[in-house]
Amino acid sequence: MNPATSVQIALGERSYPIHIGTGLLSDPALLEAALPRGPLLVVSNQTVAPLYLPRLRAAFGGRRLAECVLPDGERYKTLATLGLVYDALAGARVNRDGAVLALGGGVVGDIAGFAAATWQRGVAVAQLPTTLLAQVDSSVGGKTAVNHPGGKNLIGAFHQPSIVVADLETLDTLPARELRAGLAEVIKYGLIVDLEFLGWLERELPRLLARDREALAWAIERSCVNKARLVALDERESGPRALLNLGHTFGHAIETAAGHGEWLHGEAVAMGMVMAAETSARLGWLAAADVARVREIITRAGLPVAAPRIGVARARELMALDKKVQGGRVRLVLLKALGDAEVTGDYDPAALEAVLAAEVG
Amino acid sequence: MNPATSVQIALGERSYPIHIGTGLLSDPALLEAALPRGPLLVVSNQTVAPLYLPRLRAAFGGRRLAECVLPDGERYKTLATLGLVYDALAGARVNRDGAVLALGGGVVGDIAGFAAATWQRGVAVAQLPTTLLAQVDSSVGGKTAVNHPGGKNLIGAFHQPSIVVADLETLDTLPARELRAGLAEVIKYGLIVDLEFLGWLERELPRLLARDREALAWAIERSCVNKARLVALDERESGPRALLNLGHTFGHAIETAAGHGEWLHGEAVAMGMVMAAETSARLGWLAAADVARVREIITRAGLPVAAPRIGVARARELMALDKKVQGGRVRLVLLKALGDAEVTGDYDPAALEAVLAAEVG
Repeated sequence: MNPATSVQIALGERSYPIHIGTGLLSDPALLEAALPRGPLLVVSNQTVAPLYLPRLRAAFGGRRLAECVLPDGERYKTLATLGLVYDALAGARVNRDGAVLALGGGVVGDIAGFAAATWQRGVAVAQLPTTLLAQVDSSVGGKTAVNHPGGKNLIGAFHQPSIVVADLETLDTLPARELRAGLAEVIKYGLIVDLEFLGWLERELPRLLARDREALAWAIERSCVNKARLVALDERESGPRALLNLGHTFGHAIETAAGHGEWLHGEAVAMGMVMAAETSARLGWLAAADVARVREIITRAGLPVAAPRIGVARARELMALDKKVQGGRVRLVLLKALGDAEVTGDYDPAALEAVLAAEVG
Repeated sequence: MNPATSVQIALGERSYPIHIGTGLLSDPALLEAALPRGPLLVVSNQTVAPLYLPRLRAAFGGRRLAECVLPDGERYKTLATLGLVYDALAGARVNRDGAVLALGGGVVGDIAGFAAATWQRGVAVAQLPTTLLAQVDSSVGGKTAVNHPGGKNLIGAFHQPSIVVADLETLDTLPARELRAGLAEVIKYGLIVDLEFLGWLERELPRLLARDREALAWAIERSCVNKARLVALDERESGPRALLNLGHTFGHAIETAAGHGEWLHGEAVAMGMVMAAETSARLGWLAAADVARVREIITRAGLPVAAPRIGVARARELMALDKKVQGGRVRLVLLKALGDAEVTGDYDPAALEAVLAAEVG
């Protein structure tokens, strides 16, 4: 077992650690120390549970773990699936003395986290992310949600976990397409706040794609450090935390229009980051060479740089339901420079229109 | 229009006023000042909407109010009904710039409040309670929830309203049974923390039952002042706020066993308060004369002092899912004296068993 590194999310009494390392799911002490004494429910999915639930159960030894195994995929991130988790919580007699363990990717973490946020008005949750995307982004920071037919993540809550455990071993079984989707969120940190990390990623991308464990550990740690900083500044996303949504307003529109699950979230975010860069360029904020650099690293990561032709009107309609809309204005995360993003509603709408026409029209 | 009184809930940046008076729903300035500029959705039910939605719409003049009218009754306080509210929120394009107006009794307030708590991870809600129970209790303090087949209010969130407006005119149309149910929660304040108020209630009960507006206004204000104090001390119910649950652990078990909606919440709470008093007496904490006094005021208010015979085993099972359970122990709100309640798990379980056997066995 490699030595684990830890990143702390500093939120006063809601602070918690992210542990990153190899074989951590087999380490009982880590989880036992962070969890309350009452009944525990593991929420996982049909793909992940057969692979990793047995080692979790072994780690917990005699302590009983109830289970709730959901169908796999973004299309199941619904109120109906949430109802299954509530049924399991009632069945397992989980109360405020108990906890939920979310074992899986972003979908499992979001549903299980939201169930924990709302069961008895809030029980503890441990996030045990098993995809790169969940390890670098969705398991950290307390955003939980399910989708509504009207849009992604429209139903949700802020609910910080008690602990996040990112076991690198779980990435061994991750499909290549999902590994690439996770890299989109890793690249995002470079683009919004960390130019040095962007340079590192440009150099080390081949090692990441080859699943070099040391490179992955470093990319996850650096991503979490960046996310920790933004979340600590602004837990409930009234300010700088919204930078983490680079590419997401465009991306959510693509995901919803294509049907939840057709595009992986990371793929849609990658495409959305290209569109944000293009919009920034049309506003004169970003040089053409910088846009090319964005397109290049996304292409090299095996991620899409061409959007589905959902039409300008449909894209506008879906973007209008974005949570960042204020006073009827869609605020966007745009790039003043590489490594320097800004959230703003103060831009020339013609630039956005032109990008939509060029990319999805 | 009588001059309104106001009670302030002091919760730092989440502070808000409760306005109590006659004709307040026709006063546009009150609500407009407290609400954001974006899209508004009124959530009401099929009984209340025809009575009071027109005056609310008139008060808002030109400003558009979208509507979501739910079926009436506790049996509809479900995830499925919540889904209807989410659909209406999406249809009305309510975003973080918008708000929900909950126009109705406790069920409407709880569902609409929970929808507001979780839509886009939290939008503003104005509580416009139209029943005595909602005016003295459920609209104040930020508890929101829907029921699960396993128990009452198991799915919920803490989400403080931006404003509470208790218009006394709405009590004119309240069915007598619901007025009495509301009195159960009023009596509760006397029993848990306000002996002087209990004495006033014993004297003035006839005026309250006759819907004397001045007496009702005073009872609502005094109830809200007591609730405000407990909520300000302990917003998320880790301590003294739990006193507000006097009678609720027993009451929820009765409501769930009888089928949600058969017993009104206030009726079940009244019965639960009798059982809490009986348990306190068996522990030697309360004199027999005090228990008689509890039974008498509840009887005079036209509320039940005999429980349905749901059986000791079923009662125990339902109480075990209570949110106050800690370490497998059901904590109860018990009375050290009239006007002096305590939350505790440290009691002789034989006393509880004996009361269950006597009352529901």
